[in-house]
Formats: sequence, structure tokens, C-alpha cells
Amino acid sequence: MSIAPWRSAIARALHRNRSLVYSRYLQLATVKENGHPANRTVVFRGFLEDTNQLKFITDARSDKVDQIQQQPWAEICWYFPKTREQFRISGSLTLVGDNESQLTLQPARANMWQELSDAARLQFAWPHPSQPRVDEPAAFEPAPPDPRQPVANFCLLLLDPVQVDHLELRGEPQNRRIYSRDEQQEWCSQEVNP
Amino acid sequence: MSIAPWRSAIARALHRNRSLVYSRYLQLATVKENGHPANRTVVFRGFLEDTNQLKFITDARSDKVDQIQQQPWAEICWYFPKTREQFRISGSLTLVGDNESQLTLQPARANMWQELSDAARLQFAWPHPSQPRVDEPAAFEPAPPDPRQPVANFCLLLLDPVQVDHLELRGEPQNRRIYSRDEQQEWCSQEVNP
Repeated sequence: MSIAPWRSAIARALHRNRSLVYSRYLQLATVKENGHPANRTVVFRGFLEDTNQLKFITDARSDKVDQIQQQPWAEICWYFPKTREQFRISGSLTLVGDNESQLTLQPARANMWQELSDAARLQFAWPHPSQPRVDEPAAFEPAPPDPRQPVANFCLLLLDPVQVDHLELRGEPQNRRIYSRDEQQEWCSQEVNP
Repeated sequence: MSIAPWRSAIARALHRNRSLVYSRYLQLATVKENGHPANRTVVFRGFLEDTNQLKFITDARSDKVDQIQQQPWAEICWYFPKTREQFRISGSLTLVGDNESQLTLQPARANMWQELSDAARLQFAWPHPSQPRVDEPAAFEPAPPDPRQPVANFCLLLLDPVQVDHLELRGEPQNRRIYSRDEQQEWCSQEVNP
């Protein structure tokens, strides 16, 4: 596998926006069972080793997990405020949960869990997301989970891009380039009108 | 029409994040004809007078216009960096373009056009978006359009919310409230687990 040509543009944007902690936040759109879109903020967690796949994490109890199992296609929109540029990345998602079917990806899931902060890990021991609020504050102060072994509801989420649309608002007038992956897994790109 | 209960939370977030120009930027997810999601950054342009509908603008030549005509359902994700809160707002979109079918909304479309900056209006006279880059720089320096009369490809875009999911990451532990509109157009809300 070779590093895709759009990776350098992402790396540059991350570097130039590094003073903003939220430059690693982006919006992930999926499609619900009823055909309506869903959209939420997630945190970019780096690339899966030796691939061009973006890593995120999610709770197996969240609505998006059901959506992804029905329709794995997604598009992320990633806006970098300081450099005023946007990446729209579409591709298919892979959920790596606590089951045996993805044995080869289990080490990546365990590594991701181990890299999280204590506070991030604790959220996976909170009450079921989006259900009526549990009234006891103690429910949100559970015993810290084992930092080595992922809890059952911890999922690694991978996005395998097939198209990347990069828009630079600061260009003259603006610059926009679309990268596409063909059936031979080769990337090509074209400059388009903004 | 009465102001929906989630409007005060939006107003407060806009006020508290007003030092960041991009706190008015948000991500709009729609669904393509092939059932895949699309996601891009748009600018919040206020609420349509006497309604709870959010205003945006778009070029009739952009891909999202075709998508919306096929499937008007959308979800926006609006993250406010300074106060660390997120609004996910789902509802249906209405396109107000240069046709006679939306006569009552034409004044709102004209007002929106008149409120834009010269630079924003000029973009509607640029070459067709997302087509191969036009090489002549002069194509991006067209004659300024009439600031009073919208050009034919200028669209006002309205989102009529039916659900608003408000997450405050700064809460203890976090706060999350879901507002829903029922069939009698009444809003109710429930606190849920983050």
C-alpha cells in the first residue's frame, strides 16, 4: 500500500492548524434506515498503520452503529478554520467491535483503547447514550475500566476513502481538487472549479 | 408561530462564540440519489422571519440542489468550539430558486441576495462549480451582478427543523437534551444520557 496523494494535504492542514485542539474534530454523515441523513462530530484518531484509512472511535450502543451496519457508506466534512480549507472524504466504514470476525483488526482496536485518556475510556462505562437521563450522578462516576483491555462496547471505526474533495477558500480565487480512487486502487486527481 | 424552545440555546451559543467568525459555519448532510450521504460546510444566515427555519444560500448549479430535489431530508451538525457544544438539527429543506412556484418566498430570497457581500454575490457569476477548472483567470473576475436583483442560479435554502439534539460537553458529566416537534407542531424536550 502506498500513501495516497491527498495525505500530504491533510498532514499540512493538521500541522498548520495544530494550535486549535478542535482542528481534529470533523463531521461524519451516515444514512439512517429510513433513508434520512445523520450527522455528528467525531474526533480524528490518526490513520490505521500501513493504510489510508482514518481512525475514529464509537460506542457500540450509539445509533450510528446500527446505521453503519445497514449502510456502511459515509462522508466526512473536515473544515480547518485557521487555513480556511475543507476536505470532504467519502468512503465505506468498517466497525471493529468485540467479536471474532475481525481478528486481524483486534490489535489495532486494543492499541486505540490503550492510547485513550482515562476520561475518554470512562465514557464507555456511562449509562446507555440517548436514553432518558439517569438521575443518579454516581452512574457517571463508574469504576475506571481496565486501561489495557477494551470494554465490550468499545468500537474502532475505520473510514476507507474512495474520494477526497479538497477546497481552499484562501486561493485566488479559490482552489479545489478532487482525488478519486479507481478500480485498480490507483489515485488520480483533477483540479475543478470551486 | 412561536419561537421554538431550542432557539434560546442557539442564540446563547452564537453570542458566546461570536469572537469566532466560523462559529456560523456548520455541516449540512444530505443523501445522494444512490443512497450515499453527502456532507459540506455552509454558513448560517439567520432565521426566516416569523418562523423557526434556518436560512442558507446555495448555487443552483451545485450537486446538493439535485440531491435536495430528490430527498429534501437533511441533518446539520453545528459545533461551537468555544463553549464546546453541539447541535444536531434534522428536518426538511426547501429550495427557493428563480421560479414562480414560490412566489411568497421570493421577497425573502431577494432580501438575502441584497444582504450578501459583493464578494459573495460574485461567486454566483463564476464558472460552473465542480467542473474541470476553467483556465482563464478572467472567468473568476466577472462583471459584478446587480446587487438588487438575484441572479437566476441564486437559491435561498431553508431548513425546517423537526428535531434538535443539543449536547454540552462542558457539563458535569455532560448535558444532552433532545427537542422534538409533534404532529400538532408543538415542541417538547427530554433530557437524555450523553
